Amino acid sequence: MTGCLAIVGLGPGAEELQTPQARAALEQATDLLGYTTYLNRVPAKPGQNRHGSDNREEIARARSALEIAYTGKHVAIVSSGDPGVFAMAAAVFEAIDNGEPAWREIDVTVIPGISAMFAAASRLGAPLGHDFCAISLSDNLKPWETVIRRLEAAASADFVIALYNPISKARPWQLGAAFDLLRSIRAPQTPVIFATAVSRADEQIEIADLASADPARADMRTLVMIGSSATRLVPRPNGEPWVYTPRSVEAPVS
Amino acid sequence: MTGCLAIVGLGPGAEELQTPQARAALEQATDLLGYTTYLNRVPAKPGQNRHGSDNREEIARARSALEIAYTGKHVAIVSSGDPGVFAMAAAVFEAIDNGEPAWREIDVTVIPGISAMFAAASRLGAPLGHDFCAISLSDNLKPWETVIRRLEAAASADFVIALYNPISKARPWQLGAAFDLLRSIRAPQTPVIFATAVSRADEQIEIADLASADPARADMRTLVMIGSSATRLVPRPNGEPWVYTPRSVEAPVS
Repeated sequence: MTGCLAIVGLGPGAEELQTPQARAALEQATDLLGYTTYLNRVPAKPGQNRHGSDNREEIARARSALEIAYTGKHVAIVSSGDPGVFAMAAAVFEAIDNGEPAWREIDVTVIPGISAMFAAASRLGAPLGHDFCAISLSDNLKPWETVIRRLEAAASADFVIALYNPISKARPWQLGAAFDLLRSIRAPQTPVIFATAVSRADEQIEIADLASADPARADMRTLVMIGSSATRLVPRPNGEPWVYTPRSVEAPVS
Repeated sequence: MTGCLAIVGLGPGAEELQTPQARAALEQATDLLGYTTYLNRVPAKPGQNRHGSDNREEIARARSALEIAYTGKHVAIVSSGDPGVFAMAAAVFEAIDNGEPAWREIDVTVIPGISAMFAAASRLGAPLGHDFCAISLSDNLKPWETVIRRLEAAASADFVIALYNPISKARPWQLGAAFDLLRSIRAPQTPVIFATAVSRADEQIEIADLASADPARADMRTLVMIGSSATRLVPRPNGEPWVYTPRSVEAPVS
């Protein structure tokens, strides 16, 4: 008897940003797997098995979830944000692609969630209001040359850029190198946003400009956004300025 | 007395993909505004004023919402998907930026939603599993040269590409032109996905390749996705193949 595997997006943190579909999948699971920090966000339910693991054990966790599902269980594997954005969904399909042929019979569903960049954008206004891209700054799984090449292309073609995985203890210099590269292409006053732990109790959002953006403001929980040439600030009397990118591009970008 | 304005993401269509935060904002509103097709997705509530308008009247709708909010009402303006992605949020902040200074006192909140590309990706596997970008193919508000430049940059740097607003009666040739351009850069077997009305009753998903991708498969409700050089299909016995983009890039993309 083949079971099922739901790859569930928990959203950025707040319960009010979690979809009913995600909640139902978590309720129905016999077994929950995930990075322990994310698993701790899911309320305990009697009789449900919980298998927490370390952040970097994604493929081992994916294989384990598939093995359990194949025995007939209802398995949920959790991701922060959206599971398809630099998270568990790709790891699961890699594990299927390279794993037991019988795993392809498992009923796998992906349950989308609010990804960090949209939660961050919603707090600021509409910084992603025009063409944008998302780049993982981690060079654990890709060469740094690929990161550089994509940053250059995105900055030159004037996309708004969202940077996931900007910094960690093992990757301390990459965000500074990215800012240095972007300063050679984009104007010094380009808005740069550091959005940390969005929608959680310790949420922190800072607006800087590219000239002075300090990589030390980011940690593992930070989403960094760099505006396009059109991204603007709207000052307001009762709070931080709004940040938005207009829908119109007036003339060919030169 | 200044009121408040919530810019609400309804998600792709299915109720189970709408966040509790969005539902609460719709419940609390005295006035609802939106493109009539999207407004019709919101259940009627006695005593609530509903102001439907045409798809293309975004700035007029935004100004109207701000005027009503400024009189002290609780206004909700609805968007399909996420309001920050080619939708109402940018229009509202443009209206504030260029409108009455007093509008800056209005309590504006943006409520994120599941955007079409994530809903589509979840149906397919994990096609956005690596660096990706989102481009609106509409040249109503930007020069076609800008679209071309961004497509070239994204394809050359090997991003997965999500195309919003791929085609309409008034813009019949742009998607074909985009495919022609991409064929000059990307391999013929590159996966191309047409995801129409995702999560709704008439959902339709087709997987093609770049060599044979037919623009006529898309309509206004379609999200088109073009894989990177790494995007792969995983055949399975009981359904359409999964599509995913691995987390790893093995060597510098040449």
